[in-house]
Amino acid sequence: MQWLTHISQEYERELEDIRTKVLSMGGLVEQHLKMSIDALAAGKTDIADEIATSDYKVNNLELEIDEECTEILARRQPAARDLRLVLAVIKIIRDLERIGDEASKVSRVTLRLIELVSPKSYYVNVLNIGNHVRHMLHDALDAFARMDAAAAIRIAREDISVDREYDAAIRQLITYMMEDARSITTVLDVVWMVRALERIGDHVINICESIIYLVKGKDVRHQPLDDLAKELQQEAPPS
Amino acid sequence: MQWLTHISQEYERELEDIRTKVLSMGGLVEQHLKMSIDALAAGKTDIADEIATSDYKVNNLELEIDEECTEILARRQPAARDLRLVLAVIKIIRDLERIGDEASKVSRVTLRLIELVSPKSYYVNVLNIGNHVRHMLHDALDAFARMDAAAAIRIAREDISVDREYDAAIRQLITYMMEDARSITTVLDVVWMVRALERIGDHVINICESIIYLVKGKDVRHQPLDDLAKELQQEAPPS
Repeated sequence: MQWLTHISQEYERELEDIRTKVLSMGGLVEQHLKMSIDALAAGKTDIADEIATSDYKVNNLELEIDEECTEILARRQPAARDLRLVLAVIKIIRDLERIGDEASKVSRVTLRLIELVSPKSYYVNVLNIGNHVRHMLHDALDAFARMDAAAAIRIAREDISVDREYDAAIRQLITYMMEDARSITTVLDVVWMVRALERIGDHVINICESIIYLVKGKDVRHQPLDDLAKELQQEAPPS
Repeated sequence: MQWLTHISQEYERELEDIRTKVLSMGGLVEQHLKMSIDALAAGKTDIADEIATSDYKVNNLELEIDEECTEILARRQPAARDLRLVLAVIKIIRDLERIGDEASKVSRVTLRLIELVSPKSYYVNVLNIGNHVRHMLHDALDAFARMDAAAAIRIAREDISVDREYDAAIRQLITYMMEDARSITTVLDVVWMVRALERIGDHVINICESIIYLVKGKDVRHQPLDDLAKELQQEAPPS
């Protein structure tokens, strides 16, 4: 029996380990995102350069965690909630990796734009959206750490306001392009940044959906969030 | 023993079933992509309308296959290649779903553009890229059906030429915007289409990477394709 307890403790530790690693990876991605926004705001070439070229760190973490998940599936044959944890983690790290990618994109564009000394007014909306999605990511990682499905739903719902901010930003950028045709190439670069940040919002929502799946045992993708919030309120937690 | 043979046959059938369903889902997505490109080329509102609103079919297939994969993991505890198949399928269907999403986006933009009677010249590059990524998707599904890692590498390498076509298309669209500021909103819509098609190319590459992982037992994401081609040539297949 002691032998069995030992195995089960080791298994528990492995599961705990992938949870911890997801949070580390998430922390790194959040930091990259913050730095890429700060680099744009303050025109810091060195920081933008660092983020533009350091997504390999995030990539390596993704591969490492993915491999650990596969190992656990092969050796431990998890069931119920443990299985959901492993499957949710496989999906979450993919979204985190994409967020890291988009943050690098923002920094690559920042490097191009810094040299052009464009008016700061271009950036106001970009920075707002950037900070918004960064907070969403932070909260989503928190919700993962606390296994909080209600928080995950709340965060996912915020996407509507990101979409609104995105539309407003694009409309404003179009005005700039119309006012000065020579600015089009530059402004289009800003459009790419806004787009990258909006996609980060999408990935955060995916992460929230994975958290809900993990906690509630329900695949909630492609389902209206309002219905879901009501539904989950009335339900008992699964095994 | 007969009992065991029976279980193992059933298990084989389940694995075969998810493979078949991935191919059906892939076929549907490919059809949606083709229709969305054709609708743009021929200015067909009815087809564009159908594709813009029918991504729920693809979504449902994703959820269904994903659930079957989870079931197999929970009940059959697959190992080695079977485990890789299930994990690869979970990733592939996610990419297929995104491709379906992007195809719907193309059709939504098509619906907006059809009313504006824009010059056909805007579309030439879009259609070329569209057909290119459609062929890549078709070939990737073929490579999955035949478990052909060499083909998957070949297809993934084509992304370089899609990127080139994408850059050329964007440059041309910028010229249009510069020539006529009133066209900016319309041309930007075309930019979104080109962008959506380019992303489809990215998802096809992800699918190819999943196929290589499945066949060769190697996670090849974030690795240069040239190195990989050489490496895989020298290697024996895994268990």
